[in-house]
Amino acid sequence: MPLVKIWARKPRTAEDLSTMGDCVHKALVATANVPAKDRFQILEAIEPAMLVADPTYADCDRSPDQVIVEITLNSGRTLEVKKALYGDIVRRLGETLNVRSDDVLVSLVEVTKENWSFGKGIATYG
Amino acid sequence: MPLVKIWARKPRTAEDLSTMGDCVHKALVATANVPAKDRFQILEAIEPAMLVADPTYADCDRSPDQVIVEITLNSGRTLEVKKALYGDIVRRLGETLNVRSDDVLVSLVEVTKENWSFGKGIATYG
Amino acid sequence: MPLVKIWARKPRTAEDLSTMGDCVHKALVATANVPAKDRFQILEAIEPAMLVADPTYADCDRSPDQVIVEITLNSGRTLEVKKALYGDIVRRLGETLNVRSDDVLVSLVEVTKENWSFGKGIATYG
Repeated sequence: MPLVKIWARKPRTAEDLSTMGDCVHKALVATANVPAKDRFQILEAIEPAMLVADPTYADCDRSPDQVIVEITLNSGRTLEVKKALYGDIVRRLGETLNVRSDDVLVSLVEVTKENWSFGKGIATYG
Repeated sequence: MPLVKIWARKPRTAEDLSTMGDCVHKALVATANVPAKDRFQILEAIEPAMLVADPTYADCDRSPDQVIVEITLNSGRTLEVKKALYGDIVRRLGETLNVRSDDVLVSLVEVTKENWSFGKGIATYG
Repeated sequence: MPLVKIWARKPRTAEDLSTMGDCVHKALVATANVPAKDRFQILEAIEPAMLVADPTYADCDRSPDQVIVEITLNSGRTLEVKKALYGDIVRRLGETLNVRSDDVLVSLVEVTKENWSFGKGIATYG
């Protein structure tokens, strides 16, 4: 059910983006009760100037290696679950690709379960 | 009022994406009470590896021809309307482009009617 | 906290898109109580056919210079604030890039403040 979008600046490569997708998915499974097979993602490595991120907002020290993650998912996760998710995404991105924790923005967009069709033209959870 | 985004993998072409846009728009008009002229879409044919879709989640058999449709629209549609919309999108994509029904993911993001400005710097439905 | 996405058709350039990003951010700061340093944006100049906009919906006269702005932000802005935001975005785009007011679509997606991590793997406003 999550639909994940990830943007990073070049020279991050398609392979790097795929690894970022792995990290975010594993974090969703580990912390937010997402099924292991429930993985749907749009990944993009974009021209550096087309990803804008303030260098210091929210007491962070951001680098050109900024990553933006948007996750559309069903509502209902608690703040504790969201906190665990943010932490686990950052941990995995750091361990696999040396993304710095200050360089990871996560934005959640919550929807209702009726709002998904994963195929066959039916409301998957309806 | 809907803002529609569609992603498909290359070798799907810009022309294919335009046809997909036609299908989704016609389905919105036919099933979800969207005005015929209310069409706004962002279309993208992307590198195959940049669109990730689990091959079997939700009892589907997905192919490389996977399509992801995200629709931002006003809240208030009933589950019946959403089901009709999912079904009609899949039917039209199948009839025009032979997209398989298992290859169509639809994600709805609902907003309030105050959240749109379609021009002139005004709240169109405010 | 806002995450802003802007799409415009080529021949709009990366530089134009950056200026559009400036305009939208300044409008958010001026009208919607967004901190000056709270700027995060994804910008894209796309092939003309990949941005679809009805030429006349909502009593507008749209040109090839159509711009689509999507802003994910915390819920709670009043209708008056949203109206001021729409007006200020259009005014600034007109003054800097001669974008016509009929060519600016703004779509707001509201979320809760728990839904943001701006770095360090923490819930920034949680």
